Amino acid sequence: MSALTYAQEHRSRFLDELKAFVSIPSVSTLPQHTGDVRRAADWLLEQLRGMDMTGELIPLDGGHPIVYAEWRNAPGKPTMLIYGHYDVQPVDPLHEWTSPPFEPTIRGDDLYARGACDDKGQVFAVIKGLESILRSDGALPLNVKVIVEGEEEIGSPGIYKWIDRHGRKLACDFAWVSDGGLFAPGLPMITTGLRGLVYTEVEVRGPSHDLHSGQHGGAAPNPVNAVASIIAGLKDRRGRVTVPRFYAAVREPSPEEKTSWERLPFNEEAYLKELGIAVAPGEQGFGILERRWARPTLDAHGIVGGWTGAGSKTVIPSRVVAKISMRLVPDQRAVTIYKSFVKKVKKLAPEGVEVEVRELASGDPVLVDPKAKPVQVAAGVAKQVWGADPVFTREGGSVPIVAKFDRVLKVPTVLFGFGLPDDNLHAPNEKFHIPNFYKGIETVIRFIQQIAS
Amino acid sequence: MSALTYAQEHRSRFLDELKAFVSIPSVSTLPQHTGDVRRAADWLLEQLRGMDMTGELIPLDGGHPIVYAEWRNAPGKPTMLIYGHYDVQPVDPLHEWTSPPFEPTIRGDDLYARGACDDKGQVFAVIKGLESILRSDGALPLNVKVIVEGEEEIGSPGIYKWIDRHGRKLACDFAWVSDGGLFAPGLPMITTGLRGLVYTEVEVRGPSHDLHSGQHGGAAPNPVNAVASIIAGLKDRRGRVTVPRFYAAVREPSPEEKTSWERLPFNEEAYLKELGIAVAPGEQGFGILERRWARPTLDAHGIVGGWTGAGSKTVIPSRVVAKISMRLVPDQRAVTIYKSFVKKVKKLAPEGVEVEVRELASGDPVLVDPKAKPVQVAAGVAKQVWGADPVFTREGGSVPIVAKFDRVLKVPTVLFGFGLPDDNLHAPNEKFHIPNFYKGIETVIRFIQQIAS
Repeated sequence: MSALTYAQEHRSRFLDELKAFVSIPSVSTLPQHTGDVRRAADWLLEQLRGMDMTGELIPLDGGHPIVYAEWRNAPGKPTMLIYGHYDVQPVDPLHEWTSPPFEPTIRGDDLYARGACDDKGQVFAVIKGLESILRSDGALPLNVKVIVEGEEEIGSPGIYKWIDRHGRKLACDFAWVSDGGLFAPGLPMITTGLRGLVYTEVEVRGPSHDLHSGQHGGAAPNPVNAVASIIAGLKDRRGRVTVPRFYAAVREPSPEEKTSWERLPFNEEAYLKELGIAVAPGEQGFGILERRWARPTLDAHGIVGGWTGAGSKTVIPSRVVAKISMRLVPDQRAVTIYKSFVKKVKKLAPEGVEVEVRELASGDPVLVDPKAKPVQVAAGVAKQVWGADPVFTREGGSVPIVAKFDRVLKVPTVLFGFGLPDDNLHAPNEKFHIPNFYKGIETVIRFIQQIAS
Repeated sequence: MSALTYAQEHRSRFLDELKAFVSIPSVSTLPQHTGDVRRAADWLLEQLRGMDMTGELIPLDGGHPIVYAEWRNAPGKPTMLIYGHYDVQPVDPLHEWTSPPFEPTIRGDDLYARGACDDKGQVFAVIKGLESILRSDGALPLNVKVIVEGEEEIGSPGIYKWIDRHGRKLACDFAWVSDGGLFAPGLPMITTGLRGLVYTEVEVRGPSHDLHSGQHGGAAPNPVNAVASIIAGLKDRRGRVTVPRFYAAVREPSPEEKTSWERLPFNEEAYLKELGIAVAPGEQGFGILERRWARPTLDAHGIVGGWTGAGSKTVIPSRVVAKISMRLVPDQRAVTIYKSFVKKVKKLAPEGVEVEVRELASGDPVLVDPKAKPVQVAAGVAKQVWGADPVFTREGGSVPIVAKFDRVLKVPTVLFGFGLPDDNLHAPNEKFHIPNFYKGIETVIRFIQQIAS
């Protein structure tokens, strides 16, 4: 029996197993679910071992363990690294769920449950693809390493450090991540670029204590006015970031990329409506998709200082804190941009205030060469399984694990997801389109067979 | 027994009573203290009635009542209107207080408590002066009306309207306000000018809900960046407010005023040290005192929006709120400046955000004629009680009620305060120098005796 036939014949069991997987409330952000997160890890490890893979839980300092499994009996053949995560987002607001988030429910062609799409359903499709080949052929045509982490939804604090120290354990020829979606129903998407991030906290201090603004206004330095000048000064009138040499390393998208983006079925009006805005301002001279995917930017995420209660307290506050990040694109480097940012912020600070900048998080941007063999093979498979040539897009967010694969393992990553744009990730009524689950399994089977041949 | 002897002999009771008064947490800005504010009003009314004055609480629409009392048994004699307030500022940041703000504590010669100086201690000194005369002489040598409001720290929304409608009830020959301080220890001060105030809340709204800054950064309007541009744009590089025609009505101080200010024992180094700052930035071309007293200015008092917790949440927030005020000087008018401010703010708002401006408080600036009889008598008493000729200064803060006395009652106001420059008004560890409490009582006794003779 072929792997594809096996997958076909075991669909209903696969779906039942996925339902068991998503019924475990492995919410990594909430301490009360620590036991559930561990239960999901154990359950998944059991699955992988049941497919005759060698597996273990890798503990992380004070965190949720990595599920690791491997099958390395194809000497001379390439090694594929598969990444996913078994933890899920919290479920609030609970009352907006039509069916309970951890009681997987089928309505129409969709399976509703927290984690159904992000990422349990997707990573499980990949695993069921492996099982189909192993059970039908008795072996894989290449070597496989699987890491499924339990801290993605809290920013993956543990796995990054672990990769820095134990990267050799993950040595491979390419990586595969299914943690995204199609561009639109019927239109598969392969992501070839991810933005990086430098996330900072800027604290501005003025007088040593809050002052009466009547008595001292006009003489005392005001940290809120000062941080406003700083934030305002970080962009010019054309929406460009003023940090020196900010754009120096920015690589233009290739003409092919630009052309393909222009052809995407992107509806600006629908986009504005989804965001609840009238216009999409930003860096002049670039389209919305290019600004989100291929242009670096700067955003303040939060700010607090002084009197924020009701009414009119007339203080000149002593301090204010703002969170400000920059999204980076190839070939900007987080470490360089951060240094330049700190200098610029201090230069923008008006007379009389002290400024302290703290780096809270950072990650480099990533580009995957669309011509890399695994990407090309995946593109061919996409057409066979999903009936359309995939679009090559970038993603405005950061998937720092892919930056790690790029910089530490020095391998390309195939970013090929099976979700749909309306799958309600991180929101109530998360779902996974069941036909996409089966097509995901088929995608992985065909991909492995073709890349190894 | 003379009134002065009476005051001397009852010092310790007066201090105990003041401690009882400041132990009532009458924070008018916080709804949870509404009951306490009322309690302070009742307590004070009881005091005034206990001195054989006729008193009542005057309710204000949805606000805190005015404590009103009068003694009008001196026909043919002038009528003195005494004003003060029994509400106090909030106490945040609480952890910076050495002793709890509502557990009055004596350290050295100072009484530490919220409201000790601003304004409970000062208005209570005036009241104890009245009591001393009434108890020792059995009568006052003039007529007295006392109003003590409970909304000063929230901008006196109720009393202004009330005065506009019921000004005749306050008809008088002059007013007395003790809600300030000496210029320096040993140097009494009579204030002949007060800045006005326009206090606003500016709300900036972007997307209808918080957005993922990776996915949408570069395309979505960011209200925190926008409010920063607005605040930064409200002043130019020379520290001048950019609101159109902001300076058009500003009256230059007289040459005499300027000369007398130059002679004041103002130590810039000590001032900077007191504020905990290295330099006093501000409008170029003006000295520190002139900037604080006779120049209008603009300050942000607080700001909050987006993610302000620990760590790095990558949102583009949906909204941000900032509190921004302008201090006004003669002959600027609050109503004109507010209109011009709203226009300017909307003009400064970047594309893609909505801006709403709300007026939280406002008051016109005031000038008092230094040659008015009550001011001259007060100056003589100042020398007798405090041992030095008083300096005539202006005050950077606003006492909008004085503007009402000026415009509605058309009488001059004696602004003679008993606080010290380091009394920490509106800040942690507010205090009142106890000898000044006693001298304040003596000042009022002598003033009343001399003005009526």
